[in-house]
Amino acid sequence: MHKVSVTAPVNIATLKYWGKRDTSLNLPTNSSISVTLSQDDLRTLTTVGASDDFKEDKLWINGKEQNLDTPRTQSCLADLRSLRKQLEQELSSQGKDFKPLSSMKLHIVSENNFPTAAGLASSAAGFAALVFGIAKLFELPQDNSEISKIARKGSGSACRSLFGGYVGWEMGKLGDGSDSKAVQIAEEDHWDMKALICVVSDAKKEVPSTSGMQLTVKTSDLFPIRINDVVPKRYNEMVETIKQKDFEKFAELTMKDSNSFHATCLDSYPPIFYLTDTSKKIISAIHELNSQGTVVAYTFDAGPNAVLYYQPKDEEKVKAFLEPYLGHLNEWKDGKGDDEKKLDGVSKLIWTSVGGSPKIVDDCLIGDNGEPL
Amino acid sequence: MHKVSVTAPVNIATLKYWGKRDTSLNLPTNSSISVTLSQDDLRTLTTVGASDDFKEDKLWINGKEQNLDTPRTQSCLADLRSLRKQLEQELSSQGKDFKPLSSMKLHIVSENNFPTAAGLASSAAGFAALVFGIAKLFELPQDNSEISKIARKGSGSACRSLFGGYVGWEMGKLGDGSDSKAVQIAEEDHWDMKALICVVSDAKKEVPSTSGMQLTVKTSDLFPIRINDVVPKRYNEMVETIKQKDFEKFAELTMKDSNSFHATCLDSYPPIFYLTDTSKKIISAIHELNSQGTVVAYTFDAGPNAVLYYQPKDEEKVKAFLEPYLGHLNEWKDGKGDDEKKLDGVSKLIWTSVGGSPKIVDDCLIGDNGEPL
Repeated sequence: MHKVSVTAPVNIATLKYWGKRDTSLNLPTNSSISVTLSQDDLRTLTTVGASDDFKEDKLWINGKEQNLDTPRTQSCLADLRSLRKQLEQELSSQGKDFKPLSSMKLHIVSENNFPTAAGLASSAAGFAALVFGIAKLFELPQDNSEISKIARKGSGSACRSLFGGYVGWEMGKLGDGSDSKAVQIAEEDHWDMKALICVVSDAKKEVPSTSGMQLTVKTSDLFPIRINDVVPKRYNEMVETIKQKDFEKFAELTMKDSNSFHATCLDSYPPIFYLTDTSKKIISAIHELNSQGTVVAYTFDAGPNAVLYYQPKDEEKVKAFLEPYLGHLNEWKDGKGDDEKKLDGVSKLIWTSVGGSPKIVDDCLIGDNGEPL
Repeated sequence: MHKVSVTAPVNIATLKYWGKRDTSLNLPTNSSISVTLSQDDLRTLTTVGASDDFKEDKLWINGKEQNLDTPRTQSCLADLRSLRKQLEQELSSQGKDFKPLSSMKLHIVSENNFPTAAGLASSAAGFAALVFGIAKLFELPQDNSEISKIARKGSGSACRSLFGGYVGWEMGKLGDGSDSKAVQIAEEDHWDMKALICVVSDAKKEVPSTSGMQLTVKTSDLFPIRINDVVPKRYNEMVETIKQKDFEKFAELTMKDSNSFHATCLDSYPPIFYLTDTSKKIISAIHELNSQGTVVAYTFDAGPNAVLYYQPKDEEKVKAFLEPYLGHLNEWKDGKGDDEKKLDGVSKLIWTSVGGSPKIVDDCLIGDNGEPL
């Protein structure tokens, strides 16, 4: 058995991806930007094995065998095998030795180190790890931007998890998606950024993002101005704030874009709600804190969880401010939260920071028998 | 003392007024449409008295004396006195007898029959009653559309309370506001419509609509498409659905416009939230009910209260559907609500219907001494 293990990070968009112009290729209606989070705190670990002994492709996620026979996963596997086949033909034509990995079946074992209860979409890190892992096993010469196009077919936002630091997903214009790919705007050590994930419990089953975004594309009257005017301008501005490390402007653009995205959800018909009263209390609290100078940016994906970005120099200020709201969850201090301000809807805090790109690791999830360990 | 008493109705917009292009004249960024509610259930009763004995203009609302020295109220009084003066000059030139009311001070006493706790904005009915009452006392020949321009200066949406039934507020184009007025789209007996106000308790102090709408005008990136494209088209469509009595389409346009308005609030910076989790549960419940055929339209003003419109033929269906949610509030049945579905956030229900225009009544709120009774 030939195998390799990799980890891939979670990314949280600061300029939101919401809307597909092509649903089978996962081509977006607008470019987006994200911050990659540290794999020390949140990551998918994936081991990919190839062997002549394997009878069929198999995938296990968090200990449970999954159906691999979905168009998206099949599309990723086909693309990767095609690139490997191309490589094998080149090596063959050069008279070089190689393993015929493109024709072997794969066993893929994947584990997230974050609980489902954390409410984080795991598909981005999951597809990034799967695609990056197979690309490494296949020793593909393509760079991460090229590989990101394959991850994109698995899950749109997965393409951004191919890079660390600050990442753009250029929407592209071509019908085949060959120019719709992730690019790195800045490395993680260009700008040290902290992130705090506030996990908000929500009784209600949420509208899945795939169907939600298509409802918005189809029914929201406000959506066209967002994708045609608002986001293209904001993309360039946000890239600039990252390069300049202008936190105040970066925070404003991030918060505005989160609100803009949720506004188009509310303008969908029937309306889609992801923000709860708890989410809104967090938003109000952040604006109160920032009224004395911008310290924190909030952003919300397709769910009630807040992700807060702030600079390391402001960590004590952020903790002191959040204590009355979130004191009951914090480990940094024994003090109880202020009952009046307390945000009972927040069930968990994850303190993390900007982090690096996918990497090869020693941990291995597949045993010698080709099954999960 | 010369006096007259009038009542004026509440109106609830189905196409929202949100945004001023001129804040001192209350000129809107878009035309709007409302349904006037029955004065049997909700009304402002106002008695206006004029006397040479009065030393100054005075106003009492719900038993408390109010400051009359606000630009908006002064603007209404000045316009009405100017029209009365014009009338007096005409009568004088014709050698006719008249009382010099334009130079007398006014005592105005006003009472709402709905509690503040009902969470209904009272300024529309209040200014409509004040302006209509003085116009009647002054025996002004102007029609209600002309009078509505004066009420508009007191409170924008007050202009729509000058008519019963289905009312449009044409935004107008002129800088002086002389073409920004209410017009009747259809009489109340053209289309019998029921309304249910669900009063939602909200701990948080809301952003007042005047400052809220200006924040939206100034900061929302999505707002331009709403006022330039979405609302103008929707205005014409909604007028047509009212004329055709097409409830399904009327309901869809009403719900979409409420969502669109709240979306631009959320897109303001900092964002403005009026809908609470309870509001959203009501919205979801209505869409569930309507999935079998449109029965109810919801709309939300600048607050968490829902106003539901439905046709008389569907009253039993509406009550049966709402019972699990609102059974604890209903008087029509003793049965308790379903605890799981129960909307604890709803504190009061007001069952009413479309109603008529302001009218002169016998009730009187001023005593012979010129003070409130």
